[in-house]
Amino acid sequence: MLNARRSTAGRRARTPDSDARGQLLDTAIALFAERGIANTTVAQVAAAGQVTSAMVHYWFDTREHLLDAVVEERLAPLFRAIWEPVDPERDAPLELVQGIVRRMLEVTGTRPWLPSLWLREIINEGGLLRERALRHIPIKRVQGFGQNIARGQARGELNDGIEPLLLFNSILALVMLPQAAARIWQRVHPTFKFDRAVLERHVCALLMHGIAGRPAKRRLSGATR
Amino acid sequence: MLNARRSTAGRRARTPDSDARGQLLDTAIALFAERGIANTTVAQVAAAGQVTSAMVHYWFDTREHLLDAVVEERLAPLFRAIWEPVDPERDAPLELVQGIVRRMLEVTGTRPWLPSLWLREIINEGGLLRERALRHIPIKRVQGFGQNIARGQARGELNDGIEPLLLFNSILALVMLPQAAARIWQRVHPTFKFDRAVLERHVCALLMHGIAGRPAKRRLSGATR
Repeated sequence: MLNARRSTAGRRARTPDSDARGQLLDTAIALFAERGIANTTVAQVAAAGQVTSAMVHYWFDTREHLLDAVVEERLAPLFRAIWEPVDPERDAPLELVQGIVRRMLEVTGTRPWLPSLWLREIINEGGLLRERALRHIPIKRVQGFGQNIARGQARGELNDGIEPLLLFNSILALVMLPQAAARIWQRVHPTFKFDRAVLERHVCALLMHGIAGRPAKRRLSGATR
Repeated sequence: MLNARRSTAGRRARTPDSDARGQLLDTAIALFAERGIANTTVAQVAAAGQVTSAMVHYWFDTREHLLDAVVEERLAPLFRAIWEPVDPERDAPLELVQGIVRRMLEVTGTRPWLPSLWLREIINEGGLLRERALRHIPIKRVQGFGQNIARGQARGELNDGIEPLLLFNSILALVMLPQAAARIWQRVHPTFKFDRAVLERHVCALLMHGIAGRPAKRRLSGATR
């Protein structure tokens, strides 16, 4: 470990070598998503980025600061992109849900590493980005989302079998897991070709119809219409 | 590594020490779910099970055979429990879905390690149980499930925005991810207490209503059939 020449990650993001630094950050993220952070050494990051380990230390100081940079410079902007347009006080519940799904799919479209990294390093027990990521989750807005759904139920607009505090989890699961599982799923269904547009249509159809209205019968058994 | 005294895992499952062996297998699985297989050594498994590493080798021979035993003796029976009651030729689509959800929740109720292990070691790229688990997925039945849903759509009984080949993935995501994420979710929503019965009600409400019938509007960007 080198001495801490800078106290936070990203200090060098404005220097002339910021492109090379950013590329190395992206290389590190791709490796982390593929094999897990715990299984990836700084030397492997350097080799994959075709730089020396000393360069990795020059740009990111310690391994811990590299992980800070992953969250602050790559994950946190995505959280903001997903959540900032949300106004839980004003938005209609179905628009709100559809907006979150659309933006979540947009950010995964350009960051194919996101679903694996999210499942592995944030959701999983022991995930190495969990604590860092928690600091960037807009908790008030996430809580406001749950309240928005609950108000929609109280007005009789939404399926009252839905648990408002679980709905965001369900959206995340429906969008992220099939992308992380695309390769194994293709082994089960050889004719299946993963397609983000198909996933979007499927998830929106399930959620919009699943959340809207009330089930015809009060119970799950045969909620046919 | 010891010599291969036995060629497959589980050879000793019928010997008098099978209880102790089974307990050690359960200890290993709990560790694997918590910290990942790649981050768990045989010595750590032995220590957690309060036996010597030599005993682990005596019962399971190599680390690879220990992983075989995890899949063959613990995971494969759960796959069978979930899928064997399914008859894709005869079952009505909604009953079929509800049965899968119910059985999936049943098996996770008594195996709290299952959601994490599933996400981390089967779904994830590089998951160390993926290839082994694939051999136990009843592929014909899983494919039959997709065909059953497609026939339900063709009969006009089901939401035609659903993609039949993605539906099982969605069920798995809705049931497993919130359980694996329960602890982090509680940090976001401190008032939230995870409860499997609440999850079951929520998932069934979303799925039964989401799959049934046709979307009220033709929307969702061309839900063509």
